[in-house]
Amino acid sequence: MARTRFDHWPCSVARAVDLLGDAWMVLILRDAFYGVRRFEDFQSNLGIGRNVLTQRLSSLVEAGMLQRVPYQDRPVRHEYRLTDKGRGLFDIVLALVRYGDDWLAPDGPPVVLRDRETGARVDPIVVDRHTGQPIDPRAITVEPGPGFPEEHLARAKADGRFA
Amino acid sequence: MARTRFDHWPCSVARAVDLLGDAWMVLILRDAFYGVRRFEDFQSNLGIGRNVLTQRLSSLVEAGMLQRVPYQDRPVRHEYRLTDKGRGLFDIVLALVRYGDDWLAPDGPPVVLRDRETGARVDPIVVDRHTGQPIDPRAITVEPGPGFPEEHLARAKADGRFA
Repeated sequence: MARTRFDHWPCSVARAVDLLGDAWMVLILRDAFYGVRRFEDFQSNLGIGRNVLTQRLSSLVEAGMLQRVPYQDRPVRHEYRLTDKGRGLFDIVLALVRYGDDWLAPDGPPVVLRDRETGARVDPIVVDRHTGQPIDPRAITVEPGPGFPEEHLARAKADGRFA
Repeated sequence: MARTRFDHWPCSVARAVDLLGDAWMVLILRDAFYGVRRFEDFQSNLGIGRNVLTQRLSSLVEAGMLQRVPYQDRPVRHEYRLTDKGRGLFDIVLALVRYGDDWLAPDGPPVVLRDRETGARVDPIVVDRHTGQPIDPRAITVEPGPGFPEEHLARAKADGRFA
């Protein structure tokens, strides 16, 4: 069964979720952020089937999040490196870490992040760029932005999507 | 086919992704953050089938992210409100907004967030709590934390998961 696509929705959340695809894609990206580059290492870290891994890596390359780069000549072998578009997803992974550590880790964080140079603990949070403060959903209103398609505006307003 | 479960993995990313389930769950939560509470409004906003919506709302209630609350007596009608555990997910949605706005919105952000009181534009970013700076994956190392299960540590190290 073909999955429902959300990439054309007038919503950045829907588009980003569509790009991420499924849990395996997110976990492959997590490994890439933690330094994994080679097929065998992804496979052993994730305990994922070779065909599933092959398919997900292709999707990540096709969507421009990973780049397939030769690292050896005879025989030719490739590794997978994050592109800028892939590296930008780190913030989403960090938000997942934050939530999982806060709500789903009764024994404490399974994994701790440190700055490679200073050794200081790194502790991700989501804030408003202007105030530096966390964002409470109850304090927010939503309005159409420049990228909201004109032809959907009347319908969205009728549906009560914008206050 | 039963989906692969990640809720027991020693990784906050895996657990959070498992909790979120699928794209519909994330989009229902997005709507809840934007103020939607009633079945009919979720359905009309999302263009989702009634049976799919019913099933996803049940999952969200069961996992403790939404609460089902009566708002009318005769006949009894219920609405869905975010719990604290659900409200905590807003930061993940905000990280998705940030990425989608930056990478997947060639015509500009489809939707703009504003502070309800001041009207100021709200612009989510992920930063390190201690430095207030964005976090570059290349500047990070990962090590086992207090919640990493002892019995998996040797294997994880052999797999090169921790440097």
